[in-house]
Amino acid sequence: MNKTILLNKRPVGKPQLTDFKFVMEEMPKTSTDEVLLKTLYVSVDPYLRGRMSDAKSYTEPFQLQKPISSGIIAEVIDSKNEKFNKGDHVSGLLEWKEYQKSNGTGLLKVVGTKASLSAYLGILGMTGLTAYLGLTEIGVPQKGETLVVSGAAGAVGNVVGQIGKILGCRVIGIAGTDEKVELLKTKFNFDEAINYNSTENMSEAIKQACPDGVDIYFDNVGGEISDAVLFKINKFARIIVCGAISLYNETSLPVGPRIQTLLLKNSAMMKGFIINDFVKLFPEAINKLSKLLKEGKLTNTESIVEGFDNIPQAFLDLFEGKNKGKMIVAV
Amino acid sequence: MNKTILLNKRPVGKPQLTDFKFVMEEMPKTSTDEVLLKTLYVSVDPYLRGRMSDAKSYTEPFQLQKPISSGIIAEVIDSKNEKFNKGDHVSGLLEWKEYQKSNGTGLLKVVGTKASLSAYLGILGMTGLTAYLGLTEIGVPQKGETLVVSGAAGAVGNVVGQIGKILGCRVIGIAGTDEKVELLKTKFNFDEAINYNSTENMSEAIKQACPDGVDIYFDNVGGEISDAVLFKINKFARIIVCGAISLYNETSLPVGPRIQTLLLKNSAMMKGFIINDFVKLFPEAINKLSKLLKEGKLTNTESIVEGFDNIPQAFLDLFEGKNKGKMIVAV
Repeated sequence: MNKTILLNKRPVGKPQLTDFKFVMEEMPKTSTDEVLLKTLYVSVDPYLRGRMSDAKSYTEPFQLQKPISSGIIAEVIDSKNEKFNKGDHVSGLLEWKEYQKSNGTGLLKVVGTKASLSAYLGILGMTGLTAYLGLTEIGVPQKGETLVVSGAAGAVGNVVGQIGKILGCRVIGIAGTDEKVELLKTKFNFDEAINYNSTENMSEAIKQACPDGVDIYFDNVGGEISDAVLFKINKFARIIVCGAISLYNETSLPVGPRIQTLLLKNSAMMKGFIINDFVKLFPEAINKLSKLLKEGKLTNTESIVEGFDNIPQAFLDLFEGKNKGKMIVAV
Repeated sequence: MNKTILLNKRPVGKPQLTDFKFVMEEMPKTSTDEVLLKTLYVSVDPYLRGRMSDAKSYTEPFQLQKPISSGIIAEVIDSKNEKFNKGDHVSGLLEWKEYQKSNGTGLLKVVGTKASLSAYLGILGMTGLTAYLGLTEIGVPQKGETLVVSGAAGAVGNVVGQIGKILGCRVIGIAGTDEKVELLKTKFNFDEAINYNSTENMSEAIKQACPDGVDIYFDNVGGEISDAVLFKINKFARIIVCGAISLYNETSLPVGPRIQTLLLKNSAMMKGFIINDFVKLFPEAINKLSKLLKEGKLTNTESIVEGFDNIPQAFLDLFEGKNKGKMIVAV
C-alpha cells in the first residue's frame, strides 16, 4: 500500500494538522514511458501556505481531497521510459506520496551521494535560486552597500546573507532566537544579527546595526519587523519582497504604516519577487551556486526531519520558526 | 518697497495662512554680474508642503523667517550680467518676492509671448517633466495596457493621462468633483474617470473601469484611493509613487493595508519618483513635450490666480483640490 497526504480542509489562519489527511492507496502501476518513483526527500516551504488557500495568487491553489505537491527528490525504482534508468535520482514538483509514477515531464536528473542529494531542494534548488536571483536581479548589490535580510536564518535568508557577503556588502540579519543570531554571525559570516523577539526597540536596533542606513532590504517576513527596516532606507534603496511569512496566515490584509511616502522621499523601489519569473536564468545561476558551494564559499544548512508521517508537522513548524536553513523531510 | 513672503511657522497638519508672513523690505540693489528680476508668475506645488517641515526629505527644508522659494518666471528689468538683457524672460527656483536680484546661476532664458510664458512652470517645466519622465522611465507603458492616474485633474495628473493616451494606453483618471471628471473625459481624452467623492465603492468602480486590471498606476495622492487601485493590479504592474498629497499634512505616518503581499503575488514594482533624479533627461523630454504641444496633441491647462498677495491662499487651495491643471499665481 502507498501512503499519501491530501489537503483535507483549507486552513483558516494558521494551518493545523487536521487540515491534512493521510490515506492509503494502491501502489501505482507504470505504463509505457512511465517511471515509478520512491520519495526520498520532501521540501516543505512557506509558500505552500498560499496554495492551500483558494485566493488568487501566483500559483494555482491545491485542490481539496487531492494530494499536496512540493519539491521532491526521488529515486527511480522502475522505468519504462528510455530517458531514465532504475537507480537514477530525480528532482521535481511531485506529490506527497511514498511512491508515485511519472511520465518524466518536469523531472530533472540529479547526481550526488544520497547525503548530498537534498541540496537540490535547497541551495542548488529553488531556495538557492531565490536567494541568488532575488538579490542580484532586483537588489543589484554594490560593494560597500548595507544589506538587511529578514528571516535570515531561514532557508532563503541565510543564503542571501552569504551571497551578500561574497559580493562585498555589509550584511545584517534579523532572526527570532539567540541561537539563530549566533549561527548567523559565526556560521554564515553576517556582520550583525538582531533577535527581534528579545529586542524591544527594533527601530533603534536597526539604526545601530546600520550606521550608514539600509541600501537593500531582502524581506522574507513582512509585518512590523519590516516597518523598522523601511524607516531606515537610503536614497535609491531596493526592497525585495520575497516572502511575507508573518502575513501568510492572516485572513485579511493587515494594516501597517503607509510606506509610499518612504519610497517617495528616498526614490526607493520595492518589488515582488517570484522565482518562476526568472526561469531563463536558472542554469547559469545553478552553475554559480555549485561553484561557490564546491569552493567552500557557501554553506548549505538544512533542518532535516525524519519520516513521511512528519511532513505536515514539519510544514507547521516553519511558522513557528523552528527550522534553521532549509526544512526538509527525509522519508 | 518690495513685498516678500516668509515662512512664519512650520505648519502642523494642514497649512494655515498664519504660517506665512508678509514683510516689506528695501528694493534690492544689483552689483557686478547681477540682474534685477521682476516676478511675473509663481508656481505653487504640493511638494512645497514637505519643505515647510523640518523632517528629512529629498529637498532641504525652508528656514523659518526666510523667504519661501518655488518655480518662478521673471522679467529682467536691469542687468549687469552680460548673459542677460533687460526685457529677457527667465525661469528659475526663485524667492516669493516681487523683486529680487540674482547672479544668474540656475536661471534659464525662456521665450514666448507673455501669455504663453507660464507654460514653463507647467507643461514645459517641472510639471510636464514629472509627468513625462515618471510615466515613461518608471511606468514604461506598452500599447494596450491600462493606466490609472490619481489626482488626474491636477497639474501632473492630466499630463500623465494625455501622454498615456498618446502612447496607446487605456487611461482611467481619478479626481474629486464631477466637473473634473467631465474635464478629464472631454478635454483630456481619458477613457474613463471616477469621482472618488461621489463613489461609495471605489474598489468596484476601479474594477468596472479596468476590466483587464491595472498595469500602471501613476499615484499622485496615496491613501485609500490608492488602496482601491492596488487591489486590482496585474502581474508585472508598475506603480509610480509621484506624490502623496493626501498624506502631506499628516503628522505621523498613517496606516493602511500592508501592500507587500499584493506586490509579491503580482511580481509588481512600486517606485518613488523624484524629478531631480532625472536631470540628464530634461532637454530631450522638453523637446518632446514642446513638439507635442505645438502639434496640438497635448493640452496645457492652468488655474491662474491673480495677485502676489494671493500666493499663500493659492497654495492652501491645492489641498482642497481647487485647481484644475497647474496652479499658478500671476503677479
